[in-house]
Amino acid sequence: MLASNGNFLKDCWYVAAMSQEVSTKPLGRTLLERAVVLFRTEEGAVVALNDRCPHRFVPLSLGKVIGSSIQCTYHGLRFGPNGSCIHNPHGKVAQRLRIDAYPTIERYGYIWIWFGDPSKSDPSTLPNMPLLEREEEFTFVRGVLSVNANYELVTDNLLDLSHIEYLHPALARAEGVEGQKVEFFRENDTVIANRWKPNNSLSTFARLFWDCPPSSGDGRANIRWQPPAFLYLDIGVTEVGGKVEEGVCTPSIHLLTPATPFRTHYFWAQGRNRRLNDSEFDRKLWEMTDRIFRTEDKLVIEAQQASLGESADLLSMRPLLLEPDAPAMMARRILSQRISAEAAAESAEP
Amino acid sequence: MLASNGNFLKDCWYVAAMSQEVSTKPLGRTLLERAVVLFRTEEGAVVALNDRCPHRFVPLSLGKVIGSSIQCTYHGLRFGPNGSCIHNPHGKVAQRLRIDAYPTIERYGYIWIWFGDPSKSDPSTLPNMPLLEREEEFTFVRGVLSVNANYELVTDNLLDLSHIEYLHPALARAEGVEGQKVEFFRENDTVIANRWKPNNSLSTFARLFWDCPPSSGDGRANIRWQPPAFLYLDIGVTEVGGKVEEGVCTPSIHLLTPATPFRTHYFWAQGRNRRLNDSEFDRKLWEMTDRIFRTEDKLVIEAQQASLGESADLLSMRPLLLEPDAPAMMARRILSQRISAEAAAESAEP
Amino acid sequence: MLASNGNFLKDCWYVAAMSQEVSTKPLGRTLLERAVVLFRTEEGAVVALNDRCPHRFVPLSLGKVIGSSIQCTYHGLRFGPNGSCIHNPHGKVAQRLRIDAYPTIERYGYIWIWFGDPSKSDPSTLPNMPLLEREEEFTFVRGVLSVNANYELVTDNLLDLSHIEYLHPALARAEGVEGQKVEFFRENDTVIANRWKPNNSLSTFARLFWDCPPSSGDGRANIRWQPPAFLYLDIGVTEVGGKVEEGVCTPSIHLLTPATPFRTHYFWAQGRNRRLNDSEFDRKLWEMTDRIFRTEDKLVIEAQQASLGESADLLSMRPLLLEPDAPAMMARRILSQRISAEAAAESAEP
Repeated sequence: MLASNGNFLKDCWYVAAMSQEVSTKPLGRTLLERAVVLFRTEEGAVVALNDRCPHRFVPLSLGKVIGSSIQCTYHGLRFGPNGSCIHNPHGKVAQRLRIDAYPTIERYGYIWIWFGDPSKSDPSTLPNMPLLEREEEFTFVRGVLSVNANYELVTDNLLDLSHIEYLHPALARAEGVEGQKVEFFRENDTVIANRWKPNNSLSTFARLFWDCPPSSGDGRANIRWQPPAFLYLDIGVTEVGGKVEEGVCTPSIHLLTPATPFRTHYFWAQGRNRRLNDSEFDRKLWEMTDRIFRTEDKLVIEAQQASLGESADLLSMRPLLLEPDAPAMMARRILSQRISAEAAAESAEP
Repeated sequence: MLASNGNFLKDCWYVAAMSQEVSTKPLGRTLLERAVVLFRTEEGAVVALNDRCPHRFVPLSLGKVIGSSIQCTYHGLRFGPNGSCIHNPHGKVAQRLRIDAYPTIERYGYIWIWFGDPSKSDPSTLPNMPLLEREEEFTFVRGVLSVNANYELVTDNLLDLSHIEYLHPALARAEGVEGQKVEFFRENDTVIANRWKPNNSLSTFARLFWDCPPSSGDGRANIRWQPPAFLYLDIGVTEVGGKVEEGVCTPSIHLLTPATPFRTHYFWAQGRNRRLNDSEFDRKLWEMTDRIFRTEDKLVIEAQQASLGESADLLSMRPLLLEPDAPAMMARRILSQRISAEAAAESAEP
Repeated sequence: MLASNGNFLKDCWYVAAMSQEVSTKPLGRTLLERAVVLFRTEEGAVVALNDRCPHRFVPLSLGKVIGSSIQCTYHGLRFGPNGSCIHNPHGKVAQRLRIDAYPTIERYGYIWIWFGDPSKSDPSTLPNMPLLEREEEFTFVRGVLSVNANYELVTDNLLDLSHIEYLHPALARAEGVEGQKVEFFRENDTVIANRWKPNNSLSTFARLFWDCPPSSGDGRANIRWQPPAFLYLDIGVTEVGGKVEEGVCTPSIHLLTPATPFRTHYFWAQGRNRRLNDSEFDRKLWEMTDRIFRTEDKLVIEAQQASLGESADLLSMRPLLLEPDAPAMMARRILSQRISAEAAAESAEP
């Protein structure tokens, strides 16, 4: 097993949980190899602490929230939002009775957490995901999967969408990848991979959004990645020659948080600009999306990790790369440089 | 994983099983990292042998008892109470066909086993537990749990009973630990930790033993530990100002046997001086006690071990100790000294 | 865990699967520590390839057969029977896009595979098992078990059939091993262990094949082993003094293929010269044989491996050997010499 904390970018926000997962009932979750407890105070503020009582190392997530603190289930120590002990039933509250607290922000329906230098935890560095806030125009369903694989394998999956035609029967079109137009490029640290499928058949998935689907349309699958592992996927279909604004848009957001080098929390949000405010359709779309990710993507990604064994480094295995791997390789290079730069800056600090 | 046989005290009796667990149907159990088979001969004598046939290493516990011997299920070799082969269906009985046998005693409803120097296996060194033999005055129910944690974490649990007020709703009183009087001390190698709770509310558990429970009473929770891991807990309630002899006494015995550095056989006996000879109450008390140990104590102790990872040594993790940890620390120190002394004596032998 | 490819004989045929297991639906199986995918082309030919796409290391066995090729489920690369890529939907078919292919033969109802030097993969070196092709005289039922133990422990099991009288109540006779006549010898690289049981009671199993079983008969259990792990067992009973040809013959074939040093594919075929072409009896015999192997042999063999721990080498544990171990020890010696000779020849190659 690799000692691989150093393989994660630290000075950035990661998704710790969907907003709806965090309540006054504590949630224990492993994030970047750290045990973290997440909870809301009785006033509703989100708190993230190291999930180990410093007294006897019992997870605080087994305890309960009292006011704005969490009480250890074993001997009753209570810790406040900044990690310091606020009550010791067995004696005085010593200075040393404290645990690490992590900065958090609640935004876009997610709880974001910062594991790097707290002085750099600037909310303005959150990724920009305006679609999640345009509720008049888009409805999203959301989920989270636990994938037993390194998070970069999930990034690779998303940055090479040619796999759609082979892995996902419900998303594939009759034409396969033949005749797709592709372009890959980077803009600063963002990687972009666009695919157009003009005058193609519609996938089973695309048909769901039309009352009367056209026999063919102009499809697209455009994806953008930014470090460490945030992806925005613009999938859509218009009538042949039609305008994007008038067609079906089914954008999706993919936010990956490493639990360990070998396990990933995969937060997804699947949106649409049709059939808004339709809870029955929400349920159907949630089930379909969850099923595709869980039984198709997760299956091959975990099988890849199993082939790699106890290595988190795909490239050390010398895969035979094809043209559509270019964006994923760009992203891996950017991330690797960012992690190296961060490590260099850290070791240069006085 | 630690090579840690040396971390166990050897020259002492450990509980191998409850008497009722051992019959002519062999029982295989790991004790102090040794595979042991326990059985009764057809005459009723208890035998403890290494649970590996020396021929092909199949566990003898898969075999069957014939007379006073156990027959290997694979090729029919039979071994007697002292470990020597008494029948080889395939040839003559060679001297070398023998396995280790361990001294045992049956007492207090338990089978005790000795892994140290057999010449020192003196029955008089058994711990003294007279209550288990005062059947006119006390009825006990008994059980055994397998706890996936180092046995000293279980000792720690019992030597700091302040946890009762946080971990065990059925045992807690409204007052919590506030106002408890405590004293900790050692007498030779015995550690004593006493808690008094004068004029307190009664716990749900305590109320079970009264037909008409008083609204408050004088409670106590006094525990004694002796090496390696035998604990006697005197819990009881009297009417306010009443005499101990006239109140409810619910003593319990806790006997811990390491299976490995990371797994413990936890033998418990829960007694009472009320509602004697009431089998329906026995069943209810057994279920309640088992549930508390299994879903509350076992839960946090195993979570502690998970936090410690592949270390059996809590102290190397530098826990922040509180006042009520004093008795557990005394016990750890005594045990550590005893183990060191034993190892020193062993290496000094000619 | 041992790196132990070198412990397997390579220049020989191993059973990869029963014929009936291999179809146009790909089968992934670990054989000699290699991930292998087995399938039939649409024309019916059997193909065995490395079960990892060289692009992203996803198992090809998750994909599907198209014509005479297998298509990776992830990005659609297709590989033909010789392992070379025949279709790359994303660009040209580069020379480097190829995976290992293994020679196979279909014979005796099995798919045989060759992992050694392909130039030596001579079909004439297949073991000779004529009974499996005398369908007029014998009916066989077949199965495969996965045994979590080194394959030589399974060989040991079969080469010492004295265990029948202890481990298998349905196969044992009242007389036990007493009075059995035995002979062990080798003929070149074949080891032979014969047991005769003249004028003995009949086992429950033997009685199944007679409409009116005699109260006693002349039994035999003769086994032949050849490297690496092919065993032919001639079990049968005649009336006392009767001729073998006129009695009940229940021959069985045991073919062992290492998955890893600690897991074995155990292919068995149980035959009979009575109650031929009786599908109800087939079912009954299959269930009985499967149950015996699964709940009796597999149980003790896996318990042996558990005793050995992470060692695949029984002899390093210094078992106390008995006379009936002689044939198994002969076989181990022959196999060890063959593996050493093969390794020596390999390292001598220019």
